[in-house]
Amino acid sequence: MRRAWSSVLNSRHLARGSTNPPLVQGKLRLYSMRFCPYAHRVHLVLDAKHIPYDVVNVHLKDKPEWFLERNPLGKVPAVELESGDCLYESLVIADYLDEKYPQRPLYPKDLVHKAKERMFVEHFGQVARNLLKLQRSPDNEHLEAVQTGLDVFERELASRRRPFFGGEVAGMLDYMIWPWCERIDAFELLAGHQLLLPRNRYSLLNEWKLRMMDDDAVKISFIDPKYHAEFIASFVTGSPNYDILAEDQNCNKSKL
Amino acid sequence: MRRAWSSVLNSRHLARGSTNPPLVQGKLRLYSMRFCPYAHRVHLVLDAKHIPYDVVNVHLKDKPEWFLERNPLGKVPAVELESGDCLYESLVIADYLDEKYPQRPLYPKDLVHKAKERMFVEHFGQVARNLLKLQRSPDNEHLEAVQTGLDVFERELASRRRPFFGGEVAGMLDYMIWPWCERIDAFELLAGHQLLLPRNRYSLLNEWKLRMMDDDAVKISFIDPKYHAEFIASFVTGSPNYDILAEDQNCNKSKL
Repeated sequence: MRRAWSSVLNSRHLARGSTNPPLVQGKLRLYSMRFCPYAHRVHLVLDAKHIPYDVVNVHLKDKPEWFLERNPLGKVPAVELESGDCLYESLVIADYLDEKYPQRPLYPKDLVHKAKERMFVEHFGQVARNLLKLQRSPDNEHLEAVQTGLDVFERELASRRRPFFGGEVAGMLDYMIWPWCERIDAFELLAGHQLLLPRNRYSLLNEWKLRMMDDDAVKISFIDPKYHAEFIASFVTGSPNYDILAEDQNCNKSKL
Repeated sequence: MRRAWSSVLNSRHLARGSTNPPLVQGKLRLYSMRFCPYAHRVHLVLDAKHIPYDVVNVHLKDKPEWFLERNPLGKVPAVELESGDCLYESLVIADYLDEKYPQRPLYPKDLVHKAKERMFVEHFGQVARNLLKLQRSPDNEHLEAVQTGLDVFERELASRRRPFFGGEVAGMLDYMIWPWCERIDAFELLAGHQLLLPRNRYSLLNEWKLRMMDDDAVKISFIDPKYHAEFIASFVTGSPNYDILAEDQNCNKSKL
């Protein structure tokens, strides 16, 4: 079962000239790109809430016509509903799913606490943008910008004194920031000597990261750092190789 | 009454060394900057929903110590609640207020429609960023980027066939994009010959703009284009004059 799902998750990215597979009754359709951290957010919410969905991976450098018809901005993640409506923007989709599917609510009930989680998610947007800059020019200035942003989250874990930002289990804030945290080992691999998340500065974030890697939803879409690193290295050259996992027989044995 | 409120809205921007006026019982405190379009969004939501609030304007180039204590990122808008909690990020605050104060709901009830309004707000973020670039370098490339973004909203009004994006009255999408639309006349004043919103390309947006100017919430915080233009001109030099309205006796007679 897990192997079959991994062949869906890691399926080839469809390009111009392809055909959109028909929607599956009773399932949401997630248009994704296997290495996109924003799409990753939506995988995590769908998996955490056990919402049935299937995945179509989209080649973002050569977008299929049928994809642009559904989603004129051509962005992933996008979720197609059974009604034919297509939603995009990762945070909008995440909030929609949380409100529509009440099982395992990902936000605190209290509206002020909920607003605070959303403020932290917005704040992490700056960390994500700085990581992208660091990826393009790995110098100390960009490293410090990323780490100053991460300090806020280390302090927040210290003040919350709970295993996850969401409390005893991962919540919306955990899942919305996880995609970039999963990639941190890859950034470190690529940068060689640079440690993004040194233990003496980020002891709580490092512990949190280990706990997150044990979360069921995180495990489902998890990608090994070496593949993240390989993708990032291709991405910064301007020729991203979306199909690394589809092509790698070791990580996708069900296709043999 | 209106005159008294305008002296609050247009009050001087408090800087380092100032004292934070005490909170007023039964009122939210909005930390604002009179010309900030993001803060403007929160004024509109508070006024549309008749939520009692008072305003403290903050000097963003020389922030008061007490402001940074409450809001370490030092951003406006920020809303201080009676509990002492401080919320920031315009969209987070707007959503919090809409959920907390159920009078005049600003989102559609249907969750898919609500998600679509939020997608359009996100999409307008790109228009806002392009307007900022146009402000800094008023050339055809930036003008076209802004207009391509606005085309989406013209088409959307055409397909909705209603006076406002929200329907018969203004809703969240109307209020979240209004601050930049209120400033369009100012951009045109500054650019001289450039028309940002020519009638032949944007007939519906121009009609919508007139209807918005007649909306009660819009009227409360409305600023004449000549003042917007004066502020923008000072902003692009790097020395923004936050107190244009506080200093102008004609627009603030209650201070005489």
